[in-house]
Amino acid sequence: MPYNLLKGKRGLIFGALNDKSIAWKVAERAREEGAELVLTNTPVSIRMGNIDELAQRCGAVVIPADATSVEDLENLVTKGMEHLGGKFDFVLHSIGMSPNVRKGRTYDDLDYDYYHKTVDISAISFHKVIQTCRKFDAIEEWGSVVALTYIAAQRTLYGYNDMADAKAMLESIARSFGYIYGREKNIRINTVSQSPTPTTAGSGVMGLENLMDFAERMSPLGNATAAECADYIITLFSDLTRKVTMQNLYHDGGYSSMGMSMQAMHIYNEGLEYRDVKNDKSRRRNK
Amino acid sequence: MPYNLLKGKRGLIFGALNDKSIAWKVAERAREEGAELVLTNTPVSIRMGNIDELAQRCGAVVIPADATSVEDLENLVTKGMEHLGGKFDFVLHSIGMSPNVRKGRTYDDLDYDYYHKTVDISAISFHKVIQTCRKFDAIEEWGSVVALTYIAAQRTLYGYNDMADAKAMLESIARSFGYIYGREKNIRINTVSQSPTPTTAGSGVMGLENLMDFAERMSPLGNATAAECADYIITLFSDLTRKVTMQNLYHDGGYSSMGMSMQAMHIYNEGLEYRDVKNDKSRRRNK
Amino acid sequence: MPYNLLKGKRGLIFGALNDKSIAWKVAERAREEGAELVLTNTPVSIRMGNIDELAQRCGAVVIPADATSVEDLENLVTKGMEHLGGKFDFVLHSIGMSPNVRKGRTYDDLDYDYYHKTVDISAISFHKVIQTCRKFDAIEEWGSVVALTYIAAQRTLYGYNDMADAKAMLESIARSFGYIYGREKNIRINTVSQSPTPTTAGSGVMGLENLMDFAERMSPLGNATAAECADYIITLFSDLTRKVTMQNLYHDGGYSSMGMSMQAMHIYNEGLEYRDVKNDKSRRRNK
Amino acid sequence: MPYNLLKGKRGLIFGALNDKSIAWKVAERAREEGAELVLTNTPVSIRMGNIDELAQRCGAVVIPADATSVEDLENLVTKGMEHLGGKFDFVLHSIGMSPNVRKGRTYDDLDYDYYHKTVDISAISFHKVIQTCRKFDAIEEWGSVVALTYIAAQRTLYGYNDMADAKAMLESIARSFGYIYGREKNIRINTVSQSPTPTTAGSGVMGLENLMDFAERMSPLGNATAAECADYIITLFSDLTRKVTMQNLYHDGGYSSMGMSMQAMHIYNEGLEYRDVKNDKSRRRNK
Repeated sequence: MPYNLLKGKRGLIFGALNDKSIAWKVAERAREEGAELVLTNTPVSIRMGNIDELAQRCGAVVIPADATSVEDLENLVTKGMEHLGGKFDFVLHSIGMSPNVRKGRTYDDLDYDYYHKTVDISAISFHKVIQTCRKFDAIEEWGSVVALTYIAAQRTLYGYNDMADAKAMLESIARSFGYIYGREKNIRINTVSQSPTPTTAGSGVMGLENLMDFAERMSPLGNATAAECADYIITLFSDLTRKVTMQNLYHDGGYSSMGMSMQAMHIYNEGLEYRDVKNDKSRRRNK
Repeated sequence: MPYNLLKGKRGLIFGALNDKSIAWKVAERAREEGAELVLTNTPVSIRMGNIDELAQRCGAVVIPADATSVEDLENLVTKGMEHLGGKFDFVLHSIGMSPNVRKGRTYDDLDYDYYHKTVDISAISFHKVIQTCRKFDAIEEWGSVVALTYIAAQRTLYGYNDMADAKAMLESIARSFGYIYGREKNIRINTVSQSPTPTTAGSGVMGLENLMDFAERMSPLGNATAAECADYIITLFSDLTRKVTMQNLYHDGGYSSMGMSMQAMHIYNEGLEYRDVKNDKSRRRNK
Repeated sequence: MPYNLLKGKRGLIFGALNDKSIAWKVAERAREEGAELVLTNTPVSIRMGNIDELAQRCGAVVIPADATSVEDLENLVTKGMEHLGGKFDFVLHSIGMSPNVRKGRTYDDLDYDYYHKTVDISAISFHKVIQTCRKFDAIEEWGSVVALTYIAAQRTLYGYNDMADAKAMLESIARSFGYIYGREKNIRINTVSQSPTPTTAGSGVMGLENLMDFAERMSPLGNATAAECADYIITLFSDLTRKVTMQNLYHDGGYSSMGMSMQAMHIYNEGLEYRDVKNDKSRRRNK
Repeated sequence: MPYNLLKGKRGLIFGALNDKSIAWKVAERAREEGAELVLTNTPVSIRMGNIDELAQRCGAVVIPADATSVEDLENLVTKGMEHLGGKFDFVLHSIGMSPNVRKGRTYDDLDYDYYHKTVDISAISFHKVIQTCRKFDAIEEWGSVVALTYIAAQRTLYGYNDMADAKAMLESIARSFGYIYGREKNIRINTVSQSPTPTTAGSGVMGLENLMDFAERMSPLGNATAAECADYIITLFSDLTRKVTMQNLYHDGGYSSMGMSMQAMHIYNEGLEYRDVKNDKSRRRNK
């Protein structure tokens, strides 16, 4: 590395907050591979994180935009193309947030305004990004669009809440728009379903640490890191994957195809044993 | 038939417009199998269709409700239980509508207010129904909830538009809530992915007739009718399927597992031949 | 119950060993629902188990057959139709065995003769049963064929070994033959993917007990029992599911759609805690 | 291109017959990307094709081996490592053949010796290759193994016959062994599900040409070519995809996620029209 896989390409990257962000790693690697970049995030996230540091390191510009605002997106897309001197070759969508999760509303007690916001921020924003790009003819022929997702779209994880439904919708948008943008401009749209990752956003998920331990032991190759995810996404932005589209691609060390590993079962068995030990103790105490 | 599969059971059925509706057929069959029913639809649909006729035939009551209104649902659920003298054993959700489709907005030119409405009517309403039921403890232990969906949630069909995304979300809601309502009350939640069906709602889909011909020839058993769908849903409401939950169940004559049938390929081949014939004619004409 | 769902129907059931067998439960329930039955198993299994007791209880005949022997199957099918006075309306395939598992050959040290036997017994036998039936035109129009399978076909479980590959092939056979037998005779072919079940065959799977505990806690409705599986299969044999074909149907309390439940995670967390406790003890001891 | 993605890597490639073969294109591209190669095929295929030409062009050696013979594979693996001076970093399995297809035995009239051969050649050979490599510790840590497959493993295509079942089993082997080889040596194993491709092997499939036309019009990006497939496989062999394992990856221009495209429907509609025109003519003639 590097391989010049993105030499001469221009990219638009949503969602880099800080150096734990997957989007951050993608920006760094894309730059290494020769791309010119435009970075974007909401004004709040720009203040909270340190995207400017990333921009400096990547020779990139930061254009603030709320991805739920078509107006902001139009400004971003036109300014972005202006700055780069041409259309985008790739776009990364790494955006997700659930007000219900934040406010502690469980899935059987959702606030419906929040639910719509979850969907707007985490799924419909992807449609808005693509539709805006298309209206401004902002993506080059054979360009590549990727959004990050999570296996909760297929399999329910307690605590992931309404984000699961938003991710299912996000993956559907990739297919629906993948068809249209593919037949028209040969632009491909895919989602990458990544291992649980200790980003700032990920930390909001209930019990993430132990869940990550479980996933780590279930996955024959262990959990995929943010840096590894960036490597993978580089291949999807490169010219070597031009006929892959409308797919949900698991980047998870094999987790999604596992039913039960020996290592995870081992810990589970210890849990059963421990419970027996504790029950036994309490029985003797209660005699 | 009948088998008394639903003897003594109480049901709540959303979405019967007229005798082409799947919900209509389900109501009729559920009644035949011994269930007591509450029927519901929006005031507009009640006026447009003839649900009162169905209610009479089924000895059922009609309680109007807009399934996107939590207030309406609360009224429906409490009145419905009152009327039936107990909790529901089964619930059918057969609701879907896209203002974007109606107004001719294509998928690359969506109106985002409409998009939210599509999602609210076609997906989130399912969550609202279940959450309301749960708040009023309105479903019996081992009860069964079914929503109707379509394979567009997995595979893009031109013209199905933002309904595809809504259906993907709907299926996710079945899983997400299926976990919670299952562990608490042993209530199961599934979706049935039905063949294209010539209901009044279905007719809105672009080019439905020829698409149905294609599906008919692709499916080894042919398309499933609304009446057959009702039969199938009866089994899902019965006590014989108590451990099936969080599933998307294809009821489609085998369509979903077909790559290409000889019969469908035959028509396609004729299309290729016809095109050649026409090209040939026009070439000779242009000489 | 009963509902007379199979009144006047004739069935052929493979694989009842003893009263723990799923096939045994299916036979009992099918009889209750009004079916006339032919039971079959290998001569060895007939000696090992007590199928004759089942036959008596069901008023059924037992015709021995090795399902890997086309000759045996031809004899079974012709004799079976003779005995019942007509064609079969339904067939159950509940057969699986891996010599590699039995002989303790791990998946990275398979004996290839054994592997072929695993496949022959557990997958190809299903094709042989169907092909033989078709040659003798032994299944009624709109008949129903079901084979039992396990989620290991989709997700790897340590210890399940080459049975996973056989099950994947079995499910493919259901699709491949489902197309042909469907278009010709409207016969449907499906597989039921059942929870881990403590049958005599199941007990061969390494660490089954704790795996069942995990599945129990992961599944919102708990593991499905053999008796519940029989109920479900009755619906698939009935006339109410005529348009369901080429499907793999999970009957597993929701397990297949779960990523992580609170209950399973709880035990896992205890396992992590216990490990820490033990590590701590050994650290102090080693000081 | 090239990018030096495989610089310093050693590869073993099965199944290059002639310059239409996907394996041939992979060899060429792998060489361009800096890999050292061992090529192999059966003695018959070596005579029929022109693999020696490829070997020359790639500076590679050809070691004949029948992939169903463990003895041959042991010789291949040891000689191959000797020749390359180290372990393999990647392995490509591009092998498939059905004697039933060749001899015109339809799926409802399979010869069971042939069926076992189909499975042995097209699926079990993959297990044999991996097990042999593992026994000789012939694959480097973080190595990559890929096998080629086809969507017939998921969806039935008339005429694809018992190859569908073999491909389903092949994909299962990738998962089963992916778990074991992953946890031990971090070696990843995936299958690539490629568009219908006009290779010499592919030409055996009934009605391939029109099927390819259908797939071309269904896929928003059109069918993927053998050369594009090679590009994609290069990324899977590179260090950028280290955490992708046990996956079936569609490389098909979007085909697998399509329900119906406007272009394919257009031809289908013409077929329906043509049939009407012909029926009309014959009606008038018969008056």
